[in-house]
Order: sequence, then C-alpha cells, then structure tokens
Amino acid sequence: MGKGRLEAFSDGVLAILITIMVLELRPPHGTELSALRPLMPVLLSYILSFVYLGIYWNNHHHMLHATHRVTGPILWANLHLLFWLSLVPFVTAWVGENHLASTPAALYGVVLLMAAIAYWILQRHILRAEGPQSVLALAVGRDTKGKLSPLLYLLAIGAAFVRPWLADALYFLVALIWLIPDRRIERAMTGVEPSRRGAGGAA
Amino acid sequence: MGKGRLEAFSDGVLAILITIMVLELRPPHGTELSALRPLMPVLLSYILSFVYLGIYWNNHHHMLHATHRVTGPILWANLHLLFWLSLVPFVTAWVGENHLASTPAALYGVVLLMAAIAYWILQRHILRAEGPQSVLALAVGRDTKGKLSPLLYLLAIGAAFVRPWLADALYFLVALIWLIPDRRIERAMTGVEPSRRGAGGAA
Amino acid sequence: MGKGRLEAFSDGVLAILITIMVLELRPPHGTELSALRPLMPVLLSYILSFVYLGIYWNNHHHMLHATHRVTGPILWANLHLLFWLSLVPFVTAWVGENHLASTPAALYGVVLLMAAIAYWILQRHILRAEGPQSVLALAVGRDTKGKLSPLLYLLAIGAAFVRPWLADALYFLVALIWLIPDRRIERAMTGVEPSRRGAGGAA
Amino acid sequence: MGKGRLEAFSDGVLAILITIMVLELRPPHGTELSALRPLMPVLLSYILSFVYLGIYWNNHHHMLHATHRVTGPILWANLHLLFWLSLVPFVTAWVGENHLASTPAALYGVVLLMAAIAYWILQRHILRAEGPQSVLALAVGRDTKGKLSPLLYLLAIGAAFVRPWLADALYFLVALIWLIPDRRIERAMTGVEPSRRGAGGAA
Repeated sequence: MGKGRLEAFSDGVLAILITIMVLELRPPHGTELSALRPLMPVLLSYILSFVYLGIYWNNHHHMLHATHRVTGPILWANLHLLFWLSLVPFVTAWVGENHLASTPAALYGVVLLMAAIAYWILQRHILRAEGPQSVLALAVGRDTKGKLSPLLYLLAIGAAFVRPWLADALYFLVALIWLIPDRRIERAMTGVEPSRRGAGGAA
Repeated sequence: MGKGRLEAFSDGVLAILITIMVLELRPPHGTELSALRPLMPVLLSYILSFVYLGIYWNNHHHMLHATHRVTGPILWANLHLLFWLSLVPFVTAWVGENHLASTPAALYGVVLLMAAIAYWILQRHILRAEGPQSVLALAVGRDTKGKLSPLLYLLAIGAAFVRPWLADALYFLVALIWLIPDRRIERAMTGVEPSRRGAGGAA
Repeated sequence: MGKGRLEAFSDGVLAILITIMVLELRPPHGTELSALRPLMPVLLSYILSFVYLGIYWNNHHHMLHATHRVTGPILWANLHLLFWLSLVPFVTAWVGENHLASTPAALYGVVLLMAAIAYWILQRHILRAEGPQSVLALAVGRDTKGKLSPLLYLLAIGAAFVRPWLADALYFLVALIWLIPDRRIERAMTGVEPSRRGAGGAA
Repeated sequence: MGKGRLEAFSDGVLAILITIMVLELRPPHGTELSALRPLMPVLLSYILSFVYLGIYWNNHHHMLHATHRVTGPILWANLHLLFWLSLVPFVTAWVGENHLASTPAALYGVVLLMAAIAYWILQRHILRAEGPQSVLALAVGRDTKGKLSPLLYLLAIGAAFVRPWLADALYFLVALIWLIPDRRIERAMTGVEPSRRGAGGAA
C-alpha cells in the first residue's frame, strides 16, 4: 500500500487545521489601532498553535519520508493523531478568548499531551513495521525530545491551576525546544543521511 | 485516465469534511470545567462522524489502490458518494445539538444509509471495469460487512423513533464492526496480498 | 513546467468550494421533520451547485489530462476560472435563502456565464499551446455543449426577471445536458481514445 | 528530502486561504440589486487579495520548480511565509468592512510587506542551497520587482494615514506590476528556459 495518499490526506487535514484557526481572528468593529488590542491574546494563541501544527507537519513529513511500509494499524494510528490535532483550533479559540484562565490553559495542554501520545503510538507502529535496524529507528534514537515534551505538558497542566502564565510559558518552551535544531542529534545523524535529521518525535 | 486526480480530489473533500465538523465545537463562554459539559454530546457526535469518515477514507483508499481503470461512470459514482458524505457535518451538527431527539438521530442514519448505497454503487462500477477475476473482486468477496451495515442502519432509523439511544448504539456498533479487523476475511486474503485486506465495502 | 501543481491547486480549490457550501445548511432549531422544510430550497440550490462544480472538476480533469504544456497565460486563465467558481457558494447561498427571487436567480446565471467564459478562455489558451492537430483539439471538436450553455445562461438571466422558476429550470437543464453522455461525440471520439470523451467544454 | 510534500502542503494552505476569503461575502438580506451595493468594497478587497494570493502561488510554483534540495531551514522559511499569508483573509475582511479607513488600509500593507520579506527570506535560503550558478539564481537575477514591491508597500502604509485611497491604488499598482510580464527579464531568460520566467521574487 502506497504512503502517497496517507501523506496527501494528512497534509490536507493539517493544512485545513492550520488555516481555519485564522477564522477566529475576527476583524474588530472599530478602525483604530487600539481596536486591535483585544485581539492580541487571540493572535498569540494562533501563533503558538500555528507553530505546533507546523512542528507536527515537519516531524510527520520526516517520519513518513523514512517509512517504507504502510499497514492498517499505521493508517488508524495516523487518523488517531489527526483527531487530537483537530481539537487544536477548539482549545486555541478557548485560550484566545479567555487569556490567563486556568481550565482553558490546562485543556490546551491536555490536547497537546494526547497529540504527543498519539504521535508516539504512530511512531511505535511505524518502527515495528520498519524494524530495529532501519534508518528511522537510528534517527529516532533515544527520542529525548519526544520523552521530555509529555513531562513538560503534564507540568504545564498542573501549573495552569496555580499560575496560568506559567503554563503558557511552558508551551512556548516546548515549541522552542522543537524549533531549535539539536546539534548533538544532528552530528549522530550525519552518519545516516542529513535529511533524516529530526525524523522522530512528536512536539 | 489516471486515478491520481480522483484520489486527490476525494482526499481533499474528505479532509475538509472531517475538519469542518470541528467548527461546530464552539468554545464555551465560561472558563470552568463544567462549561464544557453541554459540549459533550457535540464532541461525541463529532468523534462518531470522525470515525465514520475515517472508515470511508480507509476503504476508499484500499478500493482505489486496487483499481486500474477509471471510467466516466466511476467519476460520477465517486462524486455521488462525496455528496452524501458532505451531508455528514450537517446531520452531525443537528444530532450534536439535539441529543437523543428522534428525527435527528433517524436522519443521521438516513445519510449513513445513502452513503453506504453510494459506496456500493461506486464499488459495482469499479468491479465491472476490473472484471470478476480481479484482485478487487476477490478482496470484496461476499462483502458481509457491506451487506450487514445497511440493514443495521435501517434498524437504527426505526429504533430512533422508539428509543433514540438505541439508534446511537447501533451507529457505534456498525463503526466498531468496521474498525475491528475481520480475521476470517484476513486469512482468505493472505492468498491475495495482505495490503488488499478490507479493500471492499462501505461503512 | 509541470501540470501537477496546477491540477493539485485546482483540485484543492474545487474541493473546498464544493464543501464549504454545505456550511450554509445550518441545522434547524426544532427537532421535527417539519423543521427541515425551510431548508429544502437551500438543499436544492446546494445540490445544483454541487453538480455544477462536479461537472467543472470533471471537464477540467479531462482537459488537463490531454494537456502537455502549461504556460504562464494558462496559469492565469486557470486562476481566472477559479475566481468565478469561487463566487458559486456566495450566489448559491443568496438563491437558497431567497427562493424564486428574481435578482438572486439572475446573478446565479451571471456567475455561471462568467465561469463558462473563463473556461472557454482557458480552453483557448491550452488549445493554442497544444496545436490544432492535438488530441485535445479533436476531442473538443465543434464544442456544441460549450457554445449552447452560455446561450441558455443568457436566456435564464432574462427569464429570472419574468418567471424565476424558469431560470432555475434552465440551470437544471444545462446541468442535465452535461451529465448525459453525448453518444454522437462519444462515437467520434472512439477513433481517438475512449477516456478523452468529454475533454472539452465548460458547463 | 522530496519537495513534493512541501509543494502539496503549500498548495493546500494557499487553496484554503484563497477560498475562505469568500466566506466574508455574506449574501445580503434584501433581494434587490441595490442590496449588493454595500458588498462592493468587500468584493473589491476580495478580488485584490485573490490576485495577490494567486501571484504568490504562481511565484512559489516557479521558484520551487527550479529548486532541487529542500533543507530544514527552507521548510521553516516556507511555514513563515504561509503564516503571513494566512493573515491576508483577516486584513482583507477588515479593509472590506471599513472601506477607506486609515488603519485597516495600513495594516493590509504591513501584512503584504511582511509576506514579501518572508518570501525574500525563503528565496535566500533556497538560493543558498542551490548555489550562485543555479538556474534559479540566474532567473531571479537582480530581482527588480522583488526590491520595488516592499518600497511601494512602505509608501502605501504611510499614504494610508493621509489618503487611504492612495494606499489602495498602490496595492493595485504592485499587483499590476506582477501581473504584467516583464519583457526585458523574459528576453534575458530565454537563454535559460522559457518556463523559468518569473521564477523569483515575491509580490
């Protein structure tokens, strides 16, 4: 079974998710610059979610590039990941409209946590099909980022009920960890193939 | 005529359908966890429809993978299927907003029934073009699931007017039947090719 | 320049257009079957526009299948066609909400007319690039349907101000003309290649 | 790493952006022709943004056609460009609802300016990966249009606070500059390959 349609369908869903979030950015009624101020938290949460979906697309892209066999369980694990990512616009809108409120900030983390778990499940299924000596298994390696992210999400979910801004800061931190290329991993990967860099791990 | 664009267009429509349903999940006005409670039926109907569209994408993917010739009638049978699937977000929203109401629950079943019939018509046209000795004809076989589903939909439509929750339960049951791999069919298929498993039949 | 991305982009836009129209089908507040009655004109105009966009996708598919060179003017003629088609959801919504009103019915025809002209321009540019002896030029032939449709649209636009239902009937008629395969053209085409049938002409 | 998915994802996002803008064109309540008059500024800003996104798709198409290596920074520079383009529907809606108001007209220019800068960054990364002797480097050349556009945007942003219509006129002018093929560049390019014409530069 070709992976082409799996990639095409995932690209389609991710492209729509990343774009429909902008529908929350409703033009203000006033025409002064100050009329844009209430939109700032909405814009910030849009940017954060845009970056997260971008990271997922990027990692998904790399992982499937190194995938050779697509099995039934992989198809369903992929749909499971897309399901959790499809809730990102919903929690983004709730956080954007209720800046620094505890429950929305925590739920944002829950959705990110579930997406990370779904990505990990998808990765397990692909690694099982590819085998332990595959390029992907080498590229994923110890998957430090993939193990650190869920812990930081859990921390952020707890922090949301004490200091909501701390939860937001942790979400930005995780995004940053994924955006900054990991030099050590990169070096280990040069033995494999440069383009495989960052193939593994969910945000 | 290549099947590439038919797959691309169907993927596009299915990706949009599966994603725009999430627009019904409007963030609540409150910020308490209890503010999410009224959203539960909306979320549940979203999950059910997400799974159904996922099953259709999955089966469509398999069926077209085993298709070699795309004729004019196949193009139109495919559009006919997409039409009925395009009504899924509408009935999902109606069911989500009117939990356990008879007519919405019945109409949900009518749309699923029509989509199943449309899938069956598409399958007939493809089988006619492929021939009775094709891999696809073998994979579809007696198409037990494909014949059972419409009967269960009919049962659910009737049940909706007596016990709406029974209709919902039947919709979940049909989804489950499609999600659980059929070991017997699988064994029969190993003589063909493992990836063809589940190639035939609509949800 | 490859035609792959032109097809992919057009497929994307057409898939979105055909799908966002369903967002106009808002679930009614009541839960009785009678609550659906006011939605009937909206559903009917949705079906009509779904069929028209399906015809355009179908014809576009065939025409580009027979296209070998994509030039700059072809790219822009294609975007011009997509622009007019992008107004279909707007006029569909206006017609759906104002059943049998003159101006909406006429504007629906104006958008169809402009789309037909845009398709004709695109076809001219492709035919110029392909040459008069190309498969496409043979398939398009005298382009009876492509010449008849604009005349019927003009008639419908005029009729909308006298008998709006007559305009609607004419729109259904044109869709029917495109849906029914033209046996005579088909026979002429068998000398070329069966899959090229219906390659030319706008709805 | 293949560029296929980068193109597919960008096509998806651009197709959705160009299409969701039409959702702002809400059907009027009246059914008279005069009921459409208040929609004229919305329609005009829709057309302008449609043309801009069309130019970006066109240029992106050409640039990636001449690209052979896709690196990590290119993926992120591309997402950065898509981010700014994703704000186009928002500013289009604000301008459309507040015709000839200063701040919306200026913000429209800011988003166009940032998109042009993002395109320039993407182009720099691709040129670095392709090398100074690549077809793309030759095609981009001195990039007169790419350098002129940001200056005109800056001028328009300033003009918006004095004469908003002047800002609008400048946005139309920049679009026109990109739409009209540059004969001089074209001649220089014939030594390369006709299809590469206009490969470089953002709107």
